[in-house]
Amino acid sequence: MAGNTFGEAFRVTTWGESHGTAIGVVIDGCPPGLIIDQADIDHEMARRRPGQGGASSPRKEPDKVEILSGVFVPHGEEMPRTTGTPISLAIFNKDAHSKSYDALRDIFRPGHGDKTYLAKYGIRDHRGGGRASARETAARVAAGAIAKQLLKKHAIEVRAYTIALGGVRIRTCDLSHIQENSYGCPDPVAARQMEARVQEVRAQGDTLGGIVEIRATCTAGLGDPVFDKLDAGLAHALMSIGAVKGVEIGAGFAAADMLGSENNDAIGAAGFLGNNAGGILAGISNGEEIVIRVAVKPIPSISREQRTVNLANEEVTIRVGGRHDISAIPRIIPVCEAMVRLTLADYLLRDRAIKERTGIGI
Amino acid sequence: MAGNTFGEAFRVTTWGESHGTAIGVVIDGCPPGLIIDQADIDHEMARRRPGQGGASSPRKEPDKVEILSGVFVPHGEEMPRTTGTPISLAIFNKDAHSKSYDALRDIFRPGHGDKTYLAKYGIRDHRGGGRASARETAARVAAGAIAKQLLKKHAIEVRAYTIALGGVRIRTCDLSHIQENSYGCPDPVAARQMEARVQEVRAQGDTLGGIVEIRATCTAGLGDPVFDKLDAGLAHALMSIGAVKGVEIGAGFAAADMLGSENNDAIGAAGFLGNNAGGILAGISNGEEIVIRVAVKPIPSISREQRTVNLANEEVTIRVGGRHDISAIPRIIPVCEAMVRLTLADYLLRDRAIKERTGIGI
Amino acid sequence: MAGNTFGEAFRVTTWGESHGTAIGVVIDGCPPGLIIDQADIDHEMARRRPGQGGASSPRKEPDKVEILSGVFVPHGEEMPRTTGTPISLAIFNKDAHSKSYDALRDIFRPGHGDKTYLAKYGIRDHRGGGRASARETAARVAAGAIAKQLLKKHAIEVRAYTIALGGVRIRTCDLSHIQENSYGCPDPVAARQMEARVQEVRAQGDTLGGIVEIRATCTAGLGDPVFDKLDAGLAHALMSIGAVKGVEIGAGFAAADMLGSENNDAIGAAGFLGNNAGGILAGISNGEEIVIRVAVKPIPSISREQRTVNLANEEVTIRVGGRHDISAIPRIIPVCEAMVRLTLADYLLRDRAIKERTGIGI
Amino acid sequence: MAGNTFGEAFRVTTWGESHGTAIGVVIDGCPPGLIIDQADIDHEMARRRPGQGGASSPRKEPDKVEILSGVFVPHGEEMPRTTGTPISLAIFNKDAHSKSYDALRDIFRPGHGDKTYLAKYGIRDHRGGGRASARETAARVAAGAIAKQLLKKHAIEVRAYTIALGGVRIRTCDLSHIQENSYGCPDPVAARQMEARVQEVRAQGDTLGGIVEIRATCTAGLGDPVFDKLDAGLAHALMSIGAVKGVEIGAGFAAADMLGSENNDAIGAAGFLGNNAGGILAGISNGEEIVIRVAVKPIPSISREQRTVNLANEEVTIRVGGRHDISAIPRIIPVCEAMVRLTLADYLLRDRAIKERTGIGI
Repeated sequence: MAGNTFGEAFRVTTWGESHGTAIGVVIDGCPPGLIIDQADIDHEMARRRPGQGGASSPRKEPDKVEILSGVFVPHGEEMPRTTGTPISLAIFNKDAHSKSYDALRDIFRPGHGDKTYLAKYGIRDHRGGGRASARETAARVAAGAIAKQLLKKHAIEVRAYTIALGGVRIRTCDLSHIQENSYGCPDPVAARQMEARVQEVRAQGDTLGGIVEIRATCTAGLGDPVFDKLDAGLAHALMSIGAVKGVEIGAGFAAADMLGSENNDAIGAAGFLGNNAGGILAGISNGEEIVIRVAVKPIPSISREQRTVNLANEEVTIRVGGRHDISAIPRIIPVCEAMVRLTLADYLLRDRAIKERTGIGI
Repeated sequence: MAGNTFGEAFRVTTWGESHGTAIGVVIDGCPPGLIIDQADIDHEMARRRPGQGGASSPRKEPDKVEILSGVFVPHGEEMPRTTGTPISLAIFNKDAHSKSYDALRDIFRPGHGDKTYLAKYGIRDHRGGGRASARETAARVAAGAIAKQLLKKHAIEVRAYTIALGGVRIRTCDLSHIQENSYGCPDPVAARQMEARVQEVRAQGDTLGGIVEIRATCTAGLGDPVFDKLDAGLAHALMSIGAVKGVEIGAGFAAADMLGSENNDAIGAAGFLGNNAGGILAGISNGEEIVIRVAVKPIPSISREQRTVNLANEEVTIRVGGRHDISAIPRIIPVCEAMVRLTLADYLLRDRAIKERTGIGI
Repeated sequence: MAGNTFGEAFRVTTWGESHGTAIGVVIDGCPPGLIIDQADIDHEMARRRPGQGGASSPRKEPDKVEILSGVFVPHGEEMPRTTGTPISLAIFNKDAHSKSYDALRDIFRPGHGDKTYLAKYGIRDHRGGGRASARETAARVAAGAIAKQLLKKHAIEVRAYTIALGGVRIRTCDLSHIQENSYGCPDPVAARQMEARVQEVRAQGDTLGGIVEIRATCTAGLGDPVFDKLDAGLAHALMSIGAVKGVEIGAGFAAADMLGSENNDAIGAAGFLGNNAGGILAGISNGEEIVIRVAVKPIPSISREQRTVNLANEEVTIRVGGRHDISAIPRIIPVCEAMVRLTLADYLLRDRAIKERTGIGI
Repeated sequence: MAGNTFGEAFRVTTWGESHGTAIGVVIDGCPPGLIIDQADIDHEMARRRPGQGGASSPRKEPDKVEILSGVFVPHGEEMPRTTGTPISLAIFNKDAHSKSYDALRDIFRPGHGDKTYLAKYGIRDHRGGGRASARETAARVAAGAIAKQLLKKHAIEVRAYTIALGGVRIRTCDLSHIQENSYGCPDPVAARQMEARVQEVRAQGDTLGGIVEIRATCTAGLGDPVFDKLDAGLAHALMSIGAVKGVEIGAGFAAADMLGSENNDAIGAAGFLGNNAGGILAGISNGEEIVIRVAVKPIPSISREQRTVNLANEEVTIRVGGRHDISAIPRIIPVCEAMVRLTLADYLLRDRAIKERTGIGI
């Protein structure tokens, strides 16, 4: 009912506020025996961490993930393995400047959840956005790093990258370039234009949106129609990221303008001859690459003056200071990957249950 | 785990194949005391029924919903009321021509779930697409008609309409027109162009996609962050409709190109001064109208020749005959409304649980 | 939230009232490929059917289960197989004498749910107890018959029998006798005493309780600690049967009086050397036989005069006529078996998900 | 699927091993605005803490609960309140002597989960029983202390006490005595006999079982038939405690020997005239006191020699040393209370969802 759990078989529950003691996640249902390498987790966390230049804020958080349960170093081995019991991960908050948010206690920031959290709960932790802060996604990335280890066993790989930022779209797409620039952009020319756009907008005290594309290799057969189609699960997962306002699979919105004969992917002896389906047919993966795009809205915290109201519903203006990113890109990239991994890990395990052998050839 | 249940508090489980004995749905969690008017259900079913001209197929199904449980006519009343127990609705199939599908037993239709259902389950009911048929959505519409009665008590109204079909987009939007044409289009000029486009493509044995927009009035406070944000639930619901390939909320993909100062909805004493958020902030409804758009792919069943393979993986060609629609629009419109209603009914009841009064002012 | 669904992976949702149009169940998550033999289902239904003498009522219901979805006869085969999609089963009510319940509309029968259903829902279907009727268990037995087919593949067999009725307890236990008498009693001498006790009490217009024991062969490893321990799941399943007031596993309440050295089952090279644990250790099956006992309360419908109140809260007396059993035993026996089967089927599939191979020796 | 979450609306997920870094719990769904007094939590924890004499072990754990998220001190108030977001509680392990368990790495202790955990997961944390340790219940008690605050708002009070220990049964029951002795026993004479029995058995290196009774005041209307009847939920909750082997409601197993006319609780204008039902009719609370009894098995860790096998399946003998209790009583008492509170809190919130007002008089 309350919505802080995701997944049914590989099930994650996140908790924590931006300026509370810590944030964290409990993973229940992770199969036993997986080797957990803290370095892998650290690597994913580093990609999401604030303060790495580009469009990011200078808040300094080491974001060290502590593994509190669910792993064990078997006798004679050196690395911990999962035991099948809940894996509890915690990240203690270090560089929280709650005082700087005191001014926001009585005012609703436009584009934020301030007003809606109060409408729903009648109380809100205003410090840094509380639970509505993007900081919450650190727990998702930590959990996603565990899912990544499971998926690796099944040759499922997930990669996300930027295809648009501040109105600049890629014209070429070579994934070997995505680590060469600070925007995770597969087009080096576009990456330079994005950088210029970010500098320009930073000077104006404004922020930018963009589009992230995610690709995943995936075996055929994952997805649970009719309501838990794989695309439905992925849309749920990705739309649950605060900054995401749209999700499309394969041809997506472009399919709306196509003829059936254009959009259908013909089939040859060696596999599908196109991928407008984005790797999913009738809600089940078809063995082709899964392709998803998400629309990322501009960060709502801007230092330009905006009209709003205070708790007394008086009209006032606000400039949001603090240490904010210019765009959720590129830090949202590992978050998108994490959500896709958590979804695929869940569907992988769910598929195991239904695939119980019963005498028919599966 | 298996995916035929939607919702947690207002929970629907659908069942049935296109050419089986019947299709149906069980609703568990519907509050007691709701008056159920069979005419309301019939009305919604009629909007989704095949054989109504425009882009629809001529299959004739009366689609009569039988209420098998969960209602009771109280002593001294005339209409049945819900009792709080499961409401079982069934629609018996009448006009199923299974024989006409025999030719499809050994061949995979491009754009359909034939190959993926077999990959997943190792067995498939090939008759009319079995469970993957759009006929399955009739059960969703029946359940949505019950949800509609509940939402009415809370002044929540949902309307969907066509904003694009076959490349034709609306240029004006006056919802008073949507019942005047067979495409549910709020722009009479565009509606005529859509009709022309449908006729053109029908002659070519091809099919069309389009875009449906859904609007819902909604009180503030619905949504369960962080994973079950209201937009995440809506995206899940709508992406679970077979033909949908993309979902966006409010400004959606257009937000990717906006500045923060453009995208943020300023707030005045009387409410929000814009609605780029589409009625949802931080995953919780803000009291403004909820605005969603979905991309509808072209119907994959086309009579033009396509390349595919058969069960033996031999390359063959196929022309899909039978009684098929040219576009999922307009019949998908009541399905979109139903999925949004089921989602809102569920979140409404979920919100009741968390809103248990505890002494604070809510 | 609403409670008409049981199980997570093998998930059943029942619906229907005693005197409504029909009762039924939807099974979601049943693996594909299982051969479904209608005769097996009929056999289980016959065991639960009213009107079979002994302690049963004379209501005549054919209890014919109609399979509305989820099965398909593959080309070249003769029997239907499950397809992995929801299996919808319905039993239409035939011999419902609703009129005979009119007198009960305004009065609360002691021992029944009349008062509590009204307290909860504010409305109730008084005809034959509505949803609270034991008739609801017919749907459980139908679903259990499908689970039985799945369990058979895993050599899991479940048997229930009567060990006490009306104060008569068995002194010997030879399961070869349980089909020889109408009480499912493994002690022929006790069975005759039970019969005498039933006749005696029938003449007094009273009813009897008893104890049912259930045994299940089961492979080691089923159970999901810490909350979904196998014994917790079984207790949930069995306590959800209306007449059950107690559940114990293995030594059960007798363990309360034992020393640790008496209660612990020693372990030898060939297996456990005792079974006080009842086949479950730390919530996980240990490979020994699962042993459960349930306390069955006397049927509350008695023709002897009882004190109660009516809707106006006036004190009145009542004699409950109609066609009632003297004891829930023996008809509860197949219901107990069904609930244990549904539980084991669910845990079997759940176990598959967590057992995803990851490199460690499982 | 994985079983470390309990409840649907008031949902707790526990994690942690006996000798890991910490144990803890995340509560999702707790309504906002509840005042949380750390002293209340400390009080409940103290009752479950080891090392308090009587039948308890001398392990010293401060069991300090740290609240990591989900609460906030509103401006102008002094105490934290819940915010409606997940409440994360952690208890760091301090006095874990893992080394003392090294001898148990290769051997299966009778009566413990050693063998079954290995059968299920293929790996196990042998230190102190890992996840199967009774230490896990500390997290339940911490969560139960939060539920207690919620229930207090609804005048729901839960009390558990010992009615049998080591074969000694109470003959009088005056709850004012339960805090006067170290066994939570309402009969002072029996309490002294229990003490004598504990001393006797301690000297023999053996352990004792017993019976705990739980009573809860509860408003009418809680419970979600047909599978989530209130008694089914309570049985699930209590049977999930490691040492519990039986659960009965009201008259329980004694009802098996009663006549219907004896067992039915007659109804008068002022309420029920008996409580054989234990406060629950047809799975819904009837407003009377809820009465439950659970059978507690003797602690399996005994220092007397037992037969068992090692990892190589060689027959060996074992004496389990370490710091163990003689009986799970009295420390299980607050655990039973916690599980009943968690269940009632969950059903209370679930009831809110179905009770959505719809025009009928509820």
